[in-house]
Amino acid sequence: MLTERAASLASIFHPVSKQMEQVSSSLALLADKAGLSSDEKLVAHALLGSGKKIRPALTLLSAKILGTPSEKVITMATAVELLHIASLIHDDTVDYADTRRGESTISSKWGGKVAVLLGDYLFASSAMHVCETGNIGVIRRFSETIMDLARGELQEHFSAYNWAQTKEDYESRIYDKTATLFSTAAESGAVLSNASSDKVSALKSYGYHLGMAFQIIDDVLDFTGSESELGKPVGNDLSQGTITLPTLLFIANNPSNAGILSARNGEYTKSTLVKLVDEIRSSSAMDEAIAVCVSHTEAAKESISWLPMNNAHRSLNSLADYVIAHSK
Amino acid sequence: MLTERAASLASIFHPVSKQMEQVSSSLALLADKAGLSSDEKLVAHALLGSGKKIRPALTLLSAKILGTPSEKVITMATAVELLHIASLIHDDTVDYADTRRGESTISSKWGGKVAVLLGDYLFASSAMHVCETGNIGVIRRFSETIMDLARGELQEHFSAYNWAQTKEDYESRIYDKTATLFSTAAESGAVLSNASSDKVSALKSYGYHLGMAFQIIDDVLDFTGSESELGKPVGNDLSQGTITLPTLLFIANNPSNAGILSARNGEYTKSTLVKLVDEIRSSSAMDEAIAVCVSHTEAAKESISWLPMNNAHRSLNSLADYVIAHSK
Repeated sequence: MLTERAASLASIFHPVSKQMEQVSSSLALLADKAGLSSDEKLVAHALLGSGKKIRPALTLLSAKILGTPSEKVITMATAVELLHIASLIHDDTVDYADTRRGESTISSKWGGKVAVLLGDYLFASSAMHVCETGNIGVIRRFSETIMDLARGELQEHFSAYNWAQTKEDYESRIYDKTATLFSTAAESGAVLSNASSDKVSALKSYGYHLGMAFQIIDDVLDFTGSESELGKPVGNDLSQGTITLPTLLFIANNPSNAGILSARNGEYTKSTLVKLVDEIRSSSAMDEAIAVCVSHTEAAKESISWLPMNNAHRSLNSLADYVIAHSK
Repeated sequence: MLTERAASLASIFHPVSKQMEQVSSSLALLADKAGLSSDEKLVAHALLGSGKKIRPALTLLSAKILGTPSEKVITMATAVELLHIASLIHDDTVDYADTRRGESTISSKWGGKVAVLLGDYLFASSAMHVCETGNIGVIRRFSETIMDLARGELQEHFSAYNWAQTKEDYESRIYDKTATLFSTAAESGAVLSNASSDKVSALKSYGYHLGMAFQIIDDVLDFTGSESELGKPVGNDLSQGTITLPTLLFIANNPSNAGILSARNGEYTKSTLVKLVDEIRSSSAMDEAIAVCVSHTEAAKESISWLPMNNAHRSLNSLADYVIAHSK
């Protein structure tokens, strides 16, 4: 591994810790004021979870690398986190997930109806926050990001069990599913700090590569993590028919593997699957997938290498290393 | 009834028929180009249904009363219809509705997962269209409208079987559920035509009152319509615990009615319900509810009475009458 001891997220976020607190306060205020129902705990449960808040930190650090984050940037960071929360609520609903980060999901606690509608409410609430920035380009990019997120999840659904899909299909899907929001988070921090277009492009590119790396690591961990760490069975993606990078690389290396051939023929039994997950996990595909991931985190750091070296810059570099360090 | 022979919607929409065709073409193009999946019919099924398109017509007629609707207005009208469609897809999903206007719903045909995600995609797509208008005030109002729609449905859910709710609770709920989008549709047509603020207010008020009337009539028809017209059982709202204006007026007139008292005590059997629906349907509460509705359509017409009298103005007056005429 590149980094044996990664910095903690708290230390990475340190240059913007004050602004991160403001984001948390805004979410708490929203939970208080939503007045959605007599069941006051609903919005609080949705907003005050134990998420890592990497996306709003990205907005704030992108601004901080260039100066002091303005109020608009903090509002944008709040919007980015709200959008992420809304999208998780819908994902958990459609996937019938019972828990996330050890807490009950909204859908398991309040039912699918409330979860779908609360997700809609929070999507719109995130858009309202973006409107407060008054920047029409940022608002448009944000709306496009919501479209990307939904399309990414839809494509994942429609491409399940499609063994003919390519690495390009996978890349396009994880861009929609994950990297688009990372990219928007970083880009908007720069745009709202009135950065020059080359600086905006650099931070947007950083966000893109970090997001791609983040999703690839997530897909690797689905094979290498333990059930207790993942909160779901090992090989869960493949058992749902979701074909990710490790599987695609394994297929490329082992086109005649018996498990793959059976799966292609629609023979998808539990024992075939368990064997296939084991084979993929112990194959070179895992290291190859991690190497793709490392190439993204290196590209992320490279994108911003010419920007001023300061605490925020060092944090963005550490954040890229953090993603890799957590792949094992 | 005020109007024995209401004008048809086609004749009401006539002053903006060319622009209505442009809205339909935009929706068809979106269905073609979404490229969401190999299952190409999904988006077409969602967008090319047989909806009445009252909301986009409202945007176009509000602009037309003041001049010729611009491209921005037509884009806004498309956004308004997209938002309505997205919201219906989620409503049908959370209510497990099998059909709408005689067609299978997205959720019954493609499953809840696809329906939730497609709804998200279309919400965002509607926001992208609004961004094209470049008007930040309209974009903000549109986001607020999406929040209202979700809150309205959530409040309906949380206030089910709550016999202590007031007429004010009901009014606030149907504003969120229905009138807010009518109001935004009309207001944005005026704003994007650069109308003066008093004209904007007049058309916004027209939209508000029309929307309130529209929802009240819908709630009346739930009692007076036939099962074949409604596509659902008579008294369906009450059987789901949804307390609407006719029921609230009936309670006010008959505080000691046996069925109401049982329901308040949580004794909510099927036979109690059937009897209660019958009693409400044959009570004076129905005419009282229609009178409230008429007061809204009259207020709608009154709001715009001082604006230039032209074909579009006559259409807006006819549209108000149309809503009432369809209450029986």
